[in-house]
Amino acid sequence: MPLGERHSGDKSESRYCGVETDFDDDMPNLLSLNIHGGFDFVVATLMDPNYRPSLVDECTSRSTALPFAGSDLVLTPSQWSSHVVGKVSSWIDLDSEDETLRKDSEIALKQEIAWASHLSLQACLLPTPNRTSCANYAKCLNQILQNLASMQLWLRIPLEKSEDDTDSKNPDFMVDRQIDSWEMWNSFRLLCEHHNQLSVALDIQSSLPSASSVARWFGEPVRAGIINTNSFLTNARGYPCLSKRHQRLTTAFFNHSIQIVISGQPVHSAVGASGSRADNNVKDGLKHPLKSYLDYVAYLYQSMDPLPEQERFELGYRDYLQSPLQPLMDNLEAQTYETFEKDTVKYSQYQRAVAKALVDRVPDENASTVTTVLMVVGAGRGPLVRASLQAAEETERKLKIYAVEKNPNAVVTLHSLVKLEGWEKTVTIVSSDMRNWDAPEKADILVSELLGSFGDNELSPECLDGAQRFLKEDGISIPSSYTSFIQPVTACKLYNDIKSHKDLVHFETPYVVKLHRVARLAPTQPVFTFTHPEFSTKASNQRYKKLRFDIQSDTGSSLIHGFGGYFDAILYKDVHLGIEPSTATPNMFSWFPIFFPLRTPICIQPGTPLEVHFWRCSGSTKVWYEWCVASPTASPMHNTNGRSYWVGL
Amino acid sequence: MPLGERHSGDKSESRYCGVETDFDDDMPNLLSLNIHGGFDFVVATLMDPNYRPSLVDECTSRSTALPFAGSDLVLTPSQWSSHVVGKVSSWIDLDSEDETLRKDSEIALKQEIAWASHLSLQACLLPTPNRTSCANYAKCLNQILQNLASMQLWLRIPLEKSEDDTDSKNPDFMVDRQIDSWEMWNSFRLLCEHHNQLSVALDIQSSLPSASSVARWFGEPVRAGIINTNSFLTNARGYPCLSKRHQRLTTAFFNHSIQIVISGQPVHSAVGASGSRADNNVKDGLKHPLKSYLDYVAYLYQSMDPLPEQERFELGYRDYLQSPLQPLMDNLEAQTYETFEKDTVKYSQYQRAVAKALVDRVPDENASTVTTVLMVVGAGRGPLVRASLQAAEETERKLKIYAVEKNPNAVVTLHSLVKLEGWEKTVTIVSSDMRNWDAPEKADILVSELLGSFGDNELSPECLDGAQRFLKEDGISIPSSYTSFIQPVTACKLYNDIKSHKDLVHFETPYVVKLHRVARLAPTQPVFTFTHPEFSTKASNQRYKKLRFDIQSDTGSSLIHGFGGYFDAILYKDVHLGIEPSTATPNMFSWFPIFFPLRTPICIQPGTPLEVHFWRCSGSTKVWYEWCVASPTASPMHNTNGRSYWVGL
Repeated sequence: MPLGERHSGDKSESRYCGVETDFDDDMPNLLSLNIHGGFDFVVATLMDPNYRPSLVDECTSRSTALPFAGSDLVLTPSQWSSHVVGKVSSWIDLDSEDETLRKDSEIALKQEIAWASHLSLQACLLPTPNRTSCANYAKCLNQILQNLASMQLWLRIPLEKSEDDTDSKNPDFMVDRQIDSWEMWNSFRLLCEHHNQLSVALDIQSSLPSASSVARWFGEPVRAGIINTNSFLTNARGYPCLSKRHQRLTTAFFNHSIQIVISGQPVHSAVGASGSRADNNVKDGLKHPLKSYLDYVAYLYQSMDPLPEQERFELGYRDYLQSPLQPLMDNLEAQTYETFEKDTVKYSQYQRAVAKALVDRVPDENASTVTTVLMVVGAGRGPLVRASLQAAEETERKLKIYAVEKNPNAVVTLHSLVKLEGWEKTVTIVSSDMRNWDAPEKADILVSELLGSFGDNELSPECLDGAQRFLKEDGISIPSSYTSFIQPVTACKLYNDIKSHKDLVHFETPYVVKLHRVARLAPTQPVFTFTHPEFSTKASNQRYKKLRFDIQSDTGSSLIHGFGGYFDAILYKDVHLGIEPSTATPNMFSWFPIFFPLRTPICIQPGTPLEVHFWRCSGSTKVWYEWCVASPTASPMHNTNGRSYWVGL
Repeated sequence: MPLGERHSGDKSESRYCGVETDFDDDMPNLLSLNIHGGFDFVVATLMDPNYRPSLVDECTSRSTALPFAGSDLVLTPSQWSSHVVGKVSSWIDLDSEDETLRKDSEIALKQEIAWASHLSLQACLLPTPNRTSCANYAKCLNQILQNLASMQLWLRIPLEKSEDDTDSKNPDFMVDRQIDSWEMWNSFRLLCEHHNQLSVALDIQSSLPSASSVARWFGEPVRAGIINTNSFLTNARGYPCLSKRHQRLTTAFFNHSIQIVISGQPVHSAVGASGSRADNNVKDGLKHPLKSYLDYVAYLYQSMDPLPEQERFELGYRDYLQSPLQPLMDNLEAQTYETFEKDTVKYSQYQRAVAKALVDRVPDENASTVTTVLMVVGAGRGPLVRASLQAAEETERKLKIYAVEKNPNAVVTLHSLVKLEGWEKTVTIVSSDMRNWDAPEKADILVSELLGSFGDNELSPECLDGAQRFLKEDGISIPSSYTSFIQPVTACKLYNDIKSHKDLVHFETPYVVKLHRVARLAPTQPVFTFTHPEFSTKASNQRYKKLRFDIQSDTGSSLIHGFGGYFDAILYKDVHLGIEPSTATPNMFSWFPIFFPLRTPICIQPGTPLEVHFWRCSGSTKVWYEWCVASPTASPMHNTNGRSYWVGL
């Protein structure tokens, strides 16, 4: 039974809660008690914990069944796959110094995963790797992963990181080695090459690492958060509750579709468990001993604010890679125009900018005599024409508009709009590419919306260079400038999606994507700026920028899969518009961020800066980006000569 | 004219010497003077050093030729390609903070390389990268490399590395940054993805870094060593000579086919150059001002010892990747037997081992009465039968031999040999796989030569496990044990050859290869050991080994492309045989080393250990290795489940 509904009946997503159980021969009873107790699934030990392959007599073993919990018939296939997550024996240690234990572990691991796979379980929880080494574990698991049908393997990782003690008062206290469980996971998944059936179950401890350290996990494939009853506090009435930080973490889990699992014995007095051996395999009819923990988790879920409408609309786009538009080479489709035109916030910003420009251009005393010539270049189906007319009306300025559009299909609609609205006297429609149009007069104001997610990536600079021929020398361009921004991110999901294409091209293509399961590792930094108009003859639209990111020292190590890219545009004076996270225009949905991948993820140690280089290059027929990491280790150059990705001129 | 012949008329290889010249409009004269002066080629500046693209008026430039040294017609095509290496203007700095210089550099670099390529020069010498950054240089060069026909680009790198000053007497003296020019090169080539037309010209300074630091370069694609006249010492007669360390370096250059280039002004008094402006564009008829430097280099070459015969024989195999044999699955060809049988050193070691075993087995007093049963398993065309018979003769022991061979083609030859030699009474030929043979009696001694370059890699353990069924309980196996060894190496050439296949399989295959252009970064360490006979029932031929290599601290950073692999075998007691470099049996040629590649080269910082894991795995039909690096960063697991490389059982 899902955790209920969020506030205000938001049914957009459900969340589930499981419970970790001990070994029980009677799986039907175990399942029934826990499901009736309100949990959605059990994380159940499949094999008798006393079993060791090396203790089995070889002759016996050939005829005897392995000591699993019952046969596959005790549950229906759908019960197995919907309600049981297998738990692999926790005595398994594949990196033990003890060779017998290591060999037993290897055999048992294979047997248990084979059994879980035979049952078509959706997932198996795997024991935590040995702190000192994980290579043999990774080697065995990697072998298994190559032939595993569709089951997910959840590697159990404690959420812990000892804090840096450079500021420690006692310098004599030497820690042998900083503990950071993320590094354990990172080694493991690098050895297994980011296998997409290998994921993480985070074991939540009673104390949490720093916020920036925890944040790394949201770029990782975390599938479950296991909360032990020991990590709960006790409220005034003796019931379990979580600390503020644990609450925020749990909420973040909900937001990232990470399932919660309750683990351990009931330890809160109001639960009535103190003293007695209260395992969670309760007697029929009694309240489940962990029910109050479940209730608290459900309460947290139900207390969450409903998703804003825009977020709900964008749910389906989360972490879904799209190739950027090529609006210059290709003509947009009606549906695309339809979507963009609905972005009222964007057009009201344009209207504000045009209004300010009109007032600056024509003083009140001349308002009735002077007509401002405004050209909308890339008018599409007319939204900027409308916004400009509204600005003129609002400021009581006289306006003459040329609407220039290269897409003949959009021009059809534009004509019909002008007729419908009765704008014939004010608006002249020009069916032409702005770079070639021979304008009959010069404009006071040039309005365009040619920006991509990375600002200049849909070739606004090249288009406006062409269009400024017919802008007066003191004329105004709206936008007057725009800047792109990047920041390094961990983005396992995106990396795996790109990798699945098994080619170079996809690793050298920037994608438009609603970034969600990413860890943003440093604040954004500006990359390229373009200003309009630009009448200097020496000016070029090629750019080169070297950036240095310092990752917050308490983050720990991290893995960079690529860069989130954004833009901010100054439309006119203080009217801006953009998606750079810290200054993003609220409730605007026309742009998702852009993602520049790295062919090989780069690992950054604490205190080591990340040096990144970005180029905007152009040839006679195309514009493209190249990028690389120069430090701490040099990456290959990406997209040399625009071999994989380019925007046609 | 080549540098002459090595001692004793060894003509196996020639070496050339070039000279770096200043810009000269008159290329025919420049070339003629230097060739007549004894040099083989000139490294010649192609473009007028005063040229700067930004100083050229745009209108003029369209009609005027670029200021190159003459037209392409001034030399014949073969003169250009055989005797001229182009030198790109040294004012070029693509990573300057000065944007004008940067843009000038980019234009000039493209123009000069295009010109050199137009002339079909074999190589161009490129200016040294900026110390602080090289990303923009690498980006531009990488663009050029994508479309460059066949010309080599020699990046000029000073051979320098400041030594670690942890032991420095003055700790207050803080060096801002350790200088290690290898790191500059490493970043550059990583950015250019090991492009095989990008190579190195090492600029030799008057002082040299530590030996282990210099050694790194012999795994890199160094094509030229440029020795400035300033780096020469003066001998008693006033002539130039080199320090002992410089001499050794020059000799190593000769050994690695690295060409020498003399650079600079004559500075030695006996040369007669002091005071006067003696550029190297000398007047006709005069002795070349740098002739005594050239003579000294030629003298060094001619003083080198001739190549030993075996080395000369193996010249053609240097750094040439071969797939290991599959002698169990495939039958060897006559030619292969022929080659191996010529290795007299190997068989004399076997003879010694059999002799010692015979004497241990049968005391002198029983020599005439007791007959030892010796079985040669994998007898091939009979060399071990011969060696065993010689051992018996030498020790005056009586011997009965069974020669077991699975290859029916070899058995034909074996029969003919036995008849020819008159061994019919002593030798019984068995045409069978030793793993299936039903022996009529048990053996005292089991002799085999089933070892591969990595010891167990041709499945000696599995074969001998099968054969030991017919060895007496106290019987002797020759060999009695063998161990494999590995060491990390830089091996740019091998990496590039593997990369050229553009697939995963080749990166997960160990190759048999005569390692030559490699840098061995640490002493070897043992990996897997097998001992025979092995009667324990619990024994397995699967192995797992974790190794930690510490790279000598004065080496500096280094790049690991993979691991050199070797073996050593104990035939009997103190008689061993092997190719592990520090204990290798001299003058044995049956085995080249094995090379285990890494899919992605791993960079090691000074003082950081390298942790490597190797597994020997087996299934019902095959045996394979898996390997990975776990630290400093985790590599992917190589050859999981033997997906790319395996040896059939």
